[in-house]
Amino acid sequence: MIRKYTFGAPLPTDAVIQNLLAEKDSLPYFTVRYGEDGSVILSLPLHPEEVLFGLGQAVRGIDKRGHRYESWNSDVFNHTEERPSLYGSHNLLVFFSPDRLLGLYLDDPGKIIWDLGWEKHDEAVITSLSGNLDVYLIEEESLTGIARAFRQLTGRSYLPPRWAFGYIQSRWGYASEEEVRTVVNEHRKRHIPLDGVCLDIDYMVDFKNFTWKPDAFPDLKRFQDEMKADHLRLVPIIDAGIKVEEGYAPYDTGKAGDCFCKKEDGSDFVAAVWPGRCCFPDFLREDVRRWFGDLYRPLLEAGIEGFWNDMNEPALFYSDEGVADAFAAADKIRAGGVDYETTWWLKDVFSGMANSMDDYRRFYHLVDGKPVRHDLVHNLYGAGMTRATAEGFRRFSPDKRLLLFSRSSFIGAHRNGGIWQGDNFSWWSHLKMALQMLPSLNLCGFLFTGCDLGGFGCNVTEDLLERFLQLGVFTPLMRNHSALHTRDQEIYRFSIWETMRDTVSVRYALLPYLYSEFMKAALRDEMLFRPLAFDYSADQRAIHIQDQLMLGEDCMIAPVYEQNAAGRYVYLPEDMLFIRFRSAQDYDLQPLEKGDHWIDLALGEFPLFVKKNRAVPLCPGGESSELLDDTTFTLLGQIEQEGTLSLYRDDGTTTDPDLESSLTRIPLVPDKFLSRIVNA
Amino acid sequence: MIRKYTFGAPLPTDAVIQNLLAEKDSLPYFTVRYGEDGSVILSLPLHPEEVLFGLGQAVRGIDKRGHRYESWNSDVFNHTEERPSLYGSHNLLVFFSPDRLLGLYLDDPGKIIWDLGWEKHDEAVITSLSGNLDVYLIEEESLTGIARAFRQLTGRSYLPPRWAFGYIQSRWGYASEEEVRTVVNEHRKRHIPLDGVCLDIDYMVDFKNFTWKPDAFPDLKRFQDEMKADHLRLVPIIDAGIKVEEGYAPYDTGKAGDCFCKKEDGSDFVAAVWPGRCCFPDFLREDVRRWFGDLYRPLLEAGIEGFWNDMNEPALFYSDEGVADAFAAADKIRAGGVDYETTWWLKDVFSGMANSMDDYRRFYHLVDGKPVRHDLVHNLYGAGMTRATAEGFRRFSPDKRLLLFSRSSFIGAHRNGGIWQGDNFSWWSHLKMALQMLPSLNLCGFLFTGCDLGGFGCNVTEDLLERFLQLGVFTPLMRNHSALHTRDQEIYRFSIWETMRDTVSVRYALLPYLYSEFMKAALRDEMLFRPLAFDYSADQRAIHIQDQLMLGEDCMIAPVYEQNAAGRYVYLPEDMLFIRFRSAQDYDLQPLEKGDHWIDLALGEFPLFVKKNRAVPLCPGGESSELLDDTTFTLLGQIEQEGTLSLYRDDGTTTDPDLESSLTRIPLVPDKFLSRIVNA
Repeated sequence: MIRKYTFGAPLPTDAVIQNLLAEKDSLPYFTVRYGEDGSVILSLPLHPEEVLFGLGQAVRGIDKRGHRYESWNSDVFNHTEERPSLYGSHNLLVFFSPDRLLGLYLDDPGKIIWDLGWEKHDEAVITSLSGNLDVYLIEEESLTGIARAFRQLTGRSYLPPRWAFGYIQSRWGYASEEEVRTVVNEHRKRHIPLDGVCLDIDYMVDFKNFTWKPDAFPDLKRFQDEMKADHLRLVPIIDAGIKVEEGYAPYDTGKAGDCFCKKEDGSDFVAAVWPGRCCFPDFLREDVRRWFGDLYRPLLEAGIEGFWNDMNEPALFYSDEGVADAFAAADKIRAGGVDYETTWWLKDVFSGMANSMDDYRRFYHLVDGKPVRHDLVHNLYGAGMTRATAEGFRRFSPDKRLLLFSRSSFIGAHRNGGIWQGDNFSWWSHLKMALQMLPSLNLCGFLFTGCDLGGFGCNVTEDLLERFLQLGVFTPLMRNHSALHTRDQEIYRFSIWETMRDTVSVRYALLPYLYSEFMKAALRDEMLFRPLAFDYSADQRAIHIQDQLMLGEDCMIAPVYEQNAAGRYVYLPEDMLFIRFRSAQDYDLQPLEKGDHWIDLALGEFPLFVKKNRAVPLCPGGESSELLDDTTFTLLGQIEQEGTLSLYRDDGTTTDPDLESSLTRIPLVPDKFLSRIVNA
Repeated sequence: MIRKYTFGAPLPTDAVIQNLLAEKDSLPYFTVRYGEDGSVILSLPLHPEEVLFGLGQAVRGIDKRGHRYESWNSDVFNHTEERPSLYGSHNLLVFFSPDRLLGLYLDDPGKIIWDLGWEKHDEAVITSLSGNLDVYLIEEESLTGIARAFRQLTGRSYLPPRWAFGYIQSRWGYASEEEVRTVVNEHRKRHIPLDGVCLDIDYMVDFKNFTWKPDAFPDLKRFQDEMKADHLRLVPIIDAGIKVEEGYAPYDTGKAGDCFCKKEDGSDFVAAVWPGRCCFPDFLREDVRRWFGDLYRPLLEAGIEGFWNDMNEPALFYSDEGVADAFAAADKIRAGGVDYETTWWLKDVFSGMANSMDDYRRFYHLVDGKPVRHDLVHNLYGAGMTRATAEGFRRFSPDKRLLLFSRSSFIGAHRNGGIWQGDNFSWWSHLKMALQMLPSLNLCGFLFTGCDLGGFGCNVTEDLLERFLQLGVFTPLMRNHSALHTRDQEIYRFSIWETMRDTVSVRYALLPYLYSEFMKAALRDEMLFRPLAFDYSADQRAIHIQDQLMLGEDCMIAPVYEQNAAGRYVYLPEDMLFIRFRSAQDYDLQPLEKGDHWIDLALGEFPLFVKKNRAVPLCPGGESSELLDDTTFTLLGQIEQEGTLSLYRDDGTTTDPDLESSLTRIPLVPDKFLSRIVNA
């Protein structure tokens, strides 16, 4: 059951697809207070045992209790446990205690502060700064029921093409087709599977969206054709800002269509990002989305089938006004003579130029024809860009799914694209964070996701990349991505590349199965990755597990995320088959009983756990998702009762899938062997 | 066996107390290369199973493999896993593999880079930038043997007074005796044990060392007497820099004695820290140490018995030259027009003013009468300050131990004082880091240590403070400390203060025992906290354990360091008695067998593990270390064979302790009960 309660005058967000009537009585469960600044404050005592799920893209554990989060889409580069917000705002929180099972969704495009047992361990205090929002209460019989009801409220998750489940190599810095060709060849000659290469901003002319360097990419279509012949796709980046430059068509047409966000005086708001001074499309307008979505057309016509949208919080490096203010502040400090406090202010003055609240208050959107200051709808920007892109794709290619993933997002964007987990670091703690973020994102509808494997910032070590890849084997987006000026991070750069290749080989052996589990989850409005609590809600141990995830219908994952670890502990909520993978061909199988286990896992080894009477099918593998044989499988499972493994198999691109008709049913027959070859 | 190898012309460091002759043959084990810049590079292949212990104060795990560390004493405020160096440089590394047991100590006061399986997982590459150093190879039969041999090489660890094992409350901001009195009263009226209050820089006049605010502390001696009557000590801070101010005695006498570090032109080097522009005592000179050590005398005469030395890396906020350079760089950027790169430089320009290598190259020490540029001896500075202070204490109070702990340190400083673990944050990851740093510090001689419980920077939550306190129960320094502008962090500020009080009560019940174990470790040149590998070197599971520590002769600790955890896993390398503490009076006792266990530990519960046939004595407890009855104990243990518990009991202040004569021997008799009351 979902009930809606309206506070103030909410702005449209495009998050919800069901048009519910607001309840007339007051909001139950919560104490409601109104701040003098117009804010609405909801508070709720927490049960000592209460676990809180949700908030999508956020730091810390699966259980969100004990921190103060903010919904405020942020381009931040230091994802420590202190960080209140990341790139997306996903305002769903599920309260789960012996006394209560309650989903709370705040449909609010502005800043929200979530004090979840921070000030007091036994109280949640949630503040909508604007006070204009729809509050949805979701009550179902189970955690999964809440997840499903929320998805039905907000719409089916985005479906990527099947090739997007292949391994993708990416790096800020690839600047020519020759460089890309080298990267591809270094993979191919070592038989490291590969399905795509991302192009970061360096493929563009002066970082201008929808351009590509004519010398470096003299014939993009020919190059994409060459890649496709080798079963590979290029995935170029597109940023939010449009460079201010007369004669540059996206700027000229945007200007002609009056597509950009405005300052109070009606002039275009300008701030610098990669290309320098840019204007920012008002993605909240339908006409602007149409104009922007059509800008992808030249790239689509060159054969590109996948994109990533970046810088769409929107990130703002600085505005002219911000620079002037900063220098004025510095001049004042300088004139007054520096002391220890003012030297710190000097740093703050200049570091504060980026993504400043001053700038976010300097520009306006048109909502229903009326100007709305950006900060009141800030969290919608990235979702608007995603929507513009997805709508453009649908116009261009109505029958074929294209790959799209974004940095910034909001609930609703999950219908139009995936997201990556943002600009992480080559930190072991970020490997754990990536794991812990998966079920929260899934709960909020973002099924197609993954982190930058190996870490974006900082320098990776080979053991860390290997452990990242072991998580990546299971995430829908399996992308190795790193920043300019960091250590080269392609698998072939490392002495243990064969170990890494063998790890990627497992992904390809599992790819038909993982794709199938993804599609089932998406089409049934379910989660691919779930906290154990969702499946074993009466198991007091299981509900607190923070570093293991249920995967699809049959499996559990428990990656190693500690440096120099020789293994890890794992809690089995029921009897399972433990697969210790070394490669697609080399693995150990060991039935384990419900309970606690220490599992030895050397650097090149990683586990998968399969429920009893369920099985995981390994295909023979291959070097591209297009080269996989999905008719012959080795079934790994401990089968004591007859059953069925249903495998979703479509063409991998159809935009209108029918789940039931695309399921192949493979009988599971009792067997004393744990491994058995079958044809599907 | 210890062998010494000399490279170049090492500068004196005061680290080593044995005068070994350098070997004439070349350094075994390592490949030695010489860089064109004069550096010396030692490299060594690593065994796949090799574990690396040591490096004292550093981030990451007990096993230091897989990161690139730097020996470079740094005032840094963001102890992420990326951080190469913290406040102290402790250049001892122990290689431990099936093939090798080898201690490597580099007696080198300059920068060292330790690539420990970073570039390549199977190689260590260690670079002394100056190339002037003594290399010591330590070969013994066991890990503990190496620890002991190294201590004998570098001297016995500092002995604090017994009261320093009490709970100490600290906060940047306590600015008057009235404020301190309130803090004390809030503890006393709730019966939260307390032995001392630290005074941070706010007690001084304008942050000037050796002054105190006359209005806020009108009669310091009277106030300290009042506190002592309540069994409490004040512990004021002293910083490294001396404010440039004529008429201020420490400056005038330092100037008269020509005590300050000089620039190349012979003038005093000046840089700003808390008091503004300061000079920096040349602690490498004996006469300067004598002058500085005597500056503590007015505070000692007021009855102060403990100090903490801070800012002695030395931290430098900025120099006049650095500010001028920064503004010149900013002017140049401004004139050229900003772009995205230059706006980043602007931040770097101003944040780079603090602790800049340019400044560290701007001043000189006198070593044996000759000027030596600071950066070549940088890592000695804090140790020199500690030595100056300790020598001053010994002159003032030759028969009585005083409390001293420092932020910056170097091997050798462990003879003169303790250290705290530096300016950590209220982060869960820092609770784990604090645990993991303990054995590394102990190995390097720093036994009297502890972290800022609750975290210095950022805002603590009550669950985090409680879990921090649970670690602090066992650390010699048990101090709650926090920064200005963070959330109030005294126990009584929180709704669960009774739980926290009960946790501290366990410290006081254990205090006679913990003090005894500390003294035994110090006087026997052993470690109080050890990695499990030191006691169970043949146990393949034990050698990799990163989050449990052996404590003294009888125990093992395994704190909870994850938010919202309902317990934790623990590996028992032998049968042990599990004590689940809730308070000094309220605990569960459960014998557990060798192996893996999941232990339930609710928020107010924490474990201690006692070896079979050993026992831990709980005294009746009390609210100050001076009020404890150390003659009646409840022995907790699983005794199946006769044995002895030896308890070190002295007056808690004698400077020349005799271990054997101060040991009380309590017989352990076979007993079906796990708890038994005895008199000592």
